[in-house]
Amino acid sequence: MNAEIIAVGSELLLGQIVNTNARFISQQLAEAGIDVYFHTVVGDNPARLKAAIKIAEERANIIIFTGGLGPTKDDLTKETIAKHLGKQLVMDDTALAGIELYFHRTNRIMTENNRKQALIIEGSHVLPNNHGMAPGMLLKKGSRIYILLPGPPKEMEPMFSQYGIKALSAEVGLKEQIVSRVLRFFGIGEAALETEIIDLIDAQSNPTIAPLAGDGEVTLRLTAKHTDEAVGASMLDEVEEKIRQRVGQYIYGYDSSSLLEELTKLLKEKKLTITAAESLTGGMFQQEITSISGASSVFKGGVVCYANEIKQLMLQVKPETLEVHGAVSEQCANELAENAARIFGTDIGISFTGVAGPDELEGKSVGTVYIGIAMKGRPTMVEEIILGGTRAANRTRAVKFGCYFLIKTIRESQNA
Amino acid sequence: MNAEIIAVGSELLLGQIVNTNARFISQQLAEAGIDVYFHTVVGDNPARLKAAIKIAEERANIIIFTGGLGPTKDDLTKETIAKHLGKQLVMDDTALAGIELYFHRTNRIMTENNRKQALIIEGSHVLPNNHGMAPGMLLKKGSRIYILLPGPPKEMEPMFSQYGIKALSAEVGLKEQIVSRVLRFFGIGEAALETEIIDLIDAQSNPTIAPLAGDGEVTLRLTAKHTDEAVGASMLDEVEEKIRQRVGQYIYGYDSSSLLEELTKLLKEKKLTITAAESLTGGMFQQEITSISGASSVFKGGVVCYANEIKQLMLQVKPETLEVHGAVSEQCANELAENAARIFGTDIGISFTGVAGPDELEGKSVGTVYIGIAMKGRPTMVEEIILGGTRAANRTRAVKFGCYFLIKTIRESQNA
Repeated sequence: MNAEIIAVGSELLLGQIVNTNARFISQQLAEAGIDVYFHTVVGDNPARLKAAIKIAEERANIIIFTGGLGPTKDDLTKETIAKHLGKQLVMDDTALAGIELYFHRTNRIMTENNRKQALIIEGSHVLPNNHGMAPGMLLKKGSRIYILLPGPPKEMEPMFSQYGIKALSAEVGLKEQIVSRVLRFFGIGEAALETEIIDLIDAQSNPTIAPLAGDGEVTLRLTAKHTDEAVGASMLDEVEEKIRQRVGQYIYGYDSSSLLEELTKLLKEKKLTITAAESLTGGMFQQEITSISGASSVFKGGVVCYANEIKQLMLQVKPETLEVHGAVSEQCANELAENAARIFGTDIGISFTGVAGPDELEGKSVGTVYIGIAMKGRPTMVEEIILGGTRAANRTRAVKFGCYFLIKTIRESQNA
Repeated sequence: MNAEIIAVGSELLLGQIVNTNARFISQQLAEAGIDVYFHTVVGDNPARLKAAIKIAEERANIIIFTGGLGPTKDDLTKETIAKHLGKQLVMDDTALAGIELYFHRTNRIMTENNRKQALIIEGSHVLPNNHGMAPGMLLKKGSRIYILLPGPPKEMEPMFSQYGIKALSAEVGLKEQIVSRVLRFFGIGEAALETEIIDLIDAQSNPTIAPLAGDGEVTLRLTAKHTDEAVGASMLDEVEEKIRQRVGQYIYGYDSSSLLEELTKLLKEKKLTITAAESLTGGMFQQEITSISGASSVFKGGVVCYANEIKQLMLQVKPETLEVHGAVSEQCANELAENAARIFGTDIGISFTGVAGPDELEGKSVGTVYIGIAMKGRPTMVEEIILGGTRAANRTRAVKFGCYFLIKTIRESQNA
């Protein structure tokens, strides 16, 4: 049992867009245990598409098409496949009603060529499109399965993950459900994490444990297969518990969450307000906090204190501190955090000072970072971290560390 | 004359990475006027790779391979192609010396399998790898051209654009050089720009003029073909001049420049300092200014004044202004910009206030933005803009508009 993914669209062959659809579908198939041997990209040309279908039929049992289901005259995927398989196109009333509703909702006039999108290949199982108009299809002929999906990723991805992969699993007799969960780590590297749990990774085949690193964070993807989804989920609970016993202190969230989202949720929950004094990060922390709608309940404002004179003028850092210890120092981070919280009248003040690079500063090497956290009712703490990336990476990593220390500090203060 | 691009690598079929190489190569081929009819992706499997080569030979004259040139046992592209074409692999001394130098430079021990990377298919033209070890190759057999490129984009992209496309053009007898230039616009939409110059676009075939929109900016790509590169460049000058006569006021830069880079360059050149008072944008402008190394000569710091109380406390906005006109107003933007420049002692102060969304504010609708610019020796100006995007897009667009207004203001003040 193996699959080939055929993307249809001249814009891919002209290099105007990247074929992210093939990647997305391949990931989902890999998780389901279905091999993919080939990806093909072909233009909006019926003869060449037909040739590609014939080649795919020689080497795959499952052929998945993306693109070419739209209303324009370039969109010829289903027409070409229907003709090739000797099948008719028939109007699907549900799909048509969906398209009419879409136009009604967006107050636009539906033109005749949009009706074309509701045509499906006779005998196919319809995959609903919740984010656009053209429905997807799954059909069988002989021992082969054909799946047609729309081209825009925002339509294709939810369609395939919600309906496509299930319909395909049922069709090929995969009785098992796939249940997966992502654990998100911060403050531990990929290699260190793997070392801590390598015996679990090696011993597990169901659920599997797959580490993935990126952007300074590490995640573990846990994937269980079972005929009963609920049993699959409890298998995940069990392996998660084992992992938590070893490295639970580095886990900050699940799935697609982010450090920033966890922090904002926590601040709102505990009704805490925060301000920031940013030197190194130049406003990045505040920019991120305010990127989340409703931030005003926890954040009122802060200062970007890039130059030393601004640290003194706006945040009352003592001249002696800057003279004796320098701006990149524990002492400076401490004053910045405490003074910011006092001046802005917030529960928490966070400060970022350090050397982003490319040049060293005050004799401190690139990547040296001090993050101060002043929180009502707790002694102010300053964390020193040493980063080894580019200027941009060091700034981004510093903000992530700041969020991580804040989450830890707030959680600890609640448990105390 | 048409090309097929074959990417080799199981990681592509597992969905671990996206095939950006096919896009890059396709773009370059499209510019050179060479058609691409198919992309193929195949795993690290000699039998399936060989089958893919045979299919490609049936339908393309130029076959371009990416990936599988590395030192590990999975890397089998050149071995498979050599065997298929009945050719030997021979050691290329220049490539070997390059690999030895690479290890010497990075202070690492060169293992035996790295020598394998210096093997080339006999009779092939070597494409140097300036960013890695494995050299690329171009070879001919019969009427077909085979090009082998490494998989990592940071090696493949410069190799193909510097050496590959030229070698290919020479081989297929394209005597013309391609010269291209990108003009960057801001403050005019794609449709409006096209309307202004549609007659030029339609009349030109060499150079061609191609508009592209993205991220709130519009670019025009000018591409000339001529046997003499210098003549090609002067053809571009000529068409650029025609465009400038119509819409020159919206052009802010060339090629891969950005509004932020142009602004920073201008501030440094004119020795101007700047500060910011950011409500709407929450620190994004300052974060971007400080993302450029050496920002400290033009930027000392600023304030994020998200809440009204901070606008009063830190930036001395009058209570009456907030009561009568509100925070999202021309008057507030004016005071914020002027007071920020005064408090921080800078030549320029910029302010951002507005409604990012998703909810309206003070009865002002989402997307309403005021940007204030106070500059020594000029009356303070406030620009009102109305944006129609999401919260994130409105914030990003506002920062871009801020940079654009600053560039215009500074240029005008110099010309005055």
